[in-house]
Amino acid sequence: MKDHCPDTGAAARADIRQGLWRKPTSGIAPGFVQCNLVILDTGAASDFLRFCQTNPKPCPLLAMSPEPGDPTLPALGASIDVRTDCPSYRIWTQGALTTECDNLLDHWQSDHVAFALGCSFSFEEALIAAGVEVRHITEGVNVPMYRTHLPCESSGVFRGTMVVSMRPMKPAQAIRAIQICARFPTVHGAPIHFGQPEAIGINDLTAPDFGEAVSIREGEVPVFWACGVTPQVALENAKLPLAFTHTPGHMLITDLRNAELAVN
Amino acid sequence: MKDHCPDTGAAARADIRQGLWRKPTSGIAPGFVQCNLVILDTGAASDFLRFCQTNPKPCPLLAMSPEPGDPTLPALGASIDVRTDCPSYRIWTQGALTTECDNLLDHWQSDHVAFALGCSFSFEEALIAAGVEVRHITEGVNVPMYRTHLPCESSGVFRGTMVVSMRPMKPAQAIRAIQICARFPTVHGAPIHFGQPEAIGINDLTAPDFGEAVSIREGEVPVFWACGVTPQVALENAKLPLAFTHTPGHMLITDLRNAELAVN
Repeated sequence: MKDHCPDTGAAARADIRQGLWRKPTSGIAPGFVQCNLVILDTGAASDFLRFCQTNPKPCPLLAMSPEPGDPTLPALGASIDVRTDCPSYRIWTQGALTTECDNLLDHWQSDHVAFALGCSFSFEEALIAAGVEVRHITEGVNVPMYRTHLPCESSGVFRGTMVVSMRPMKPAQAIRAIQICARFPTVHGAPIHFGQPEAIGINDLTAPDFGEAVSIREGEVPVFWACGVTPQVALENAKLPLAFTHTPGHMLITDLRNAELAVN
Repeated sequence: MKDHCPDTGAAARADIRQGLWRKPTSGIAPGFVQCNLVILDTGAASDFLRFCQTNPKPCPLLAMSPEPGDPTLPALGASIDVRTDCPSYRIWTQGALTTECDNLLDHWQSDHVAFALGCSFSFEEALIAAGVEVRHITEGVNVPMYRTHLPCESSGVFRGTMVVSMRPMKPAQAIRAIQICARFPTVHGAPIHFGQPEAIGINDLTAPDFGEAVSIREGEVPVFWACGVTPQVALENAKLPLAFTHTPGHMLITDLRNAELAVN
C-alpha cells in the first residue's frame, strides 16, 4: 500500500488498479473530479437514466458507458476502466448489499452499463478555496446525511425520497456557499434547504441516517444539499437482481478538473 | 398629470421633466434601471466616491458626473439631466432634511457632482420574473428597511452603519433569490444575511426604521439585502452644508436595461 497521495486522476487510477490504494479517495488527486458509480444491466439502464434526468440535483449524471458492456468512460478520462478503478465496490442483489470487493472483473457482463454521478467533493474544494469552512472536514468525519420526505420523480422501478447532506454555517457563509455551489450544477449545485430540518422531514440532526454528526455552533444554521446517496436508496427500492456501486468514499477519480465543471 | 405609464426610460424622463409625472417611479418604464441619486459639492465628492468604493453592497455606484457642474450622466442615458429628471428631490442642510422640491434648477452650482447608485427595483424585477414572490410588492407597501449594527467603512466625513431591506421567503425561494441577486452586483447583489434579525442588530421586524412592515408567514425566514438608504444615513452623519438626493421612491430612470446589469 502507498501512503503518499497520487496527484493526478490518472496516477490515482493507476495506483488503485494495481491494488496500491484501497482507502477512501477524499483528498487524493486534488483538483480532479471524483464520481459516484452505479452499474446496472441494460434492461434497467434506460429507466435509471431517466431517473437521473428528472432528478438532476441528487443524481447529476456526468457520463455513462458508450454502449452496454464497454467498461470505459471516455468522457471522463482516456484510460478509465469502471471495473477496476474504484478502490472498493459494493455488490447489490435484490436491492440488498451483499458484499464488497476490490474490482468487478469477475462480475462484469456484456449487458452492463455504468453511470458516473457528480460528488460533493468537487464543490467542497471550491468552498474551502473560498474560505468557507466545511465542518465535517474540519472535524475529520464523514459528512452527515439524512433521509428527507422530499419525493424524487419516479422512473420505472426507481423511486424514493431524497437524501441530503448537511453542512452547518453562519448565514453570511451560507449565502456565499449558495453562490459558489450554484456554479457547479453537475455536482449537486446550490443547496435545496437551510434552517428548520423538520420542514424537509428530518427530526434529529444529531442522528444522521448516513455518515456522522457534526457540531453546530451558536449562530449557525444547517444547510442541506441534495446528496449522491439518493440513487443508492432508489437502487435499494428497485430490487434489481444484480447491481454494483462504488463503496461510499471510495470514488472513481477522473481526468476532469473540478474547475472545469463551473458553468460561469 | 399623466395616468398612463411611460414605457421607456427616455419617455419617463421626458414626462417627469415636463412636470407630467410627480409620483413614485416604481413600475414605470418596466425593464429600465432606476437609480438612487446623491448630489454633493466637489469638496466632499472624493470622500463620498471612496465611501461607495469601499461599501459597494449598500452603495453600488453606477455612474457619476463627468466633471463638476455637468448635470448629465452620459453613462446612463444620452439626455439625462440630474437637475430635472427625478419627480421629486430632497434638500439637506447640515445633514438634516430641509425641504422637497420638483427640480434643482435654482440650486445647481458649478461645483456640484452627482452620484447614481443602483436600486433594488432592478433585482426585484428579476426575482418576480423568476417566480419569486416579493412580499412588499404583493402587499402594496414600501419595502421594510432597518438600521443594523454592521459598520460601513468610513471615508472622511462619511460614516455610519448599514441599512438593510428585508423580504421574507421560504428557504428554497431564498436560495433561488441569492442565486438571482448574485448576478446583479451593481444593484446590491446577493443578500448579506438571513434568519435571526438580532445577529445584525435588528430587535423588532414589525417596527422598520424606514418603509413599512410586511407579513412573515409560517416557514418563512427574513432575508436581508444591503440597502440604498445607507448612503443617506452617511450623508446625515456627514452634516454637509448642502446636499441633494432624490425623494425616496422617486428615482432617476435611465436608458440602461436591468438585464444589462447581469454579470453572467
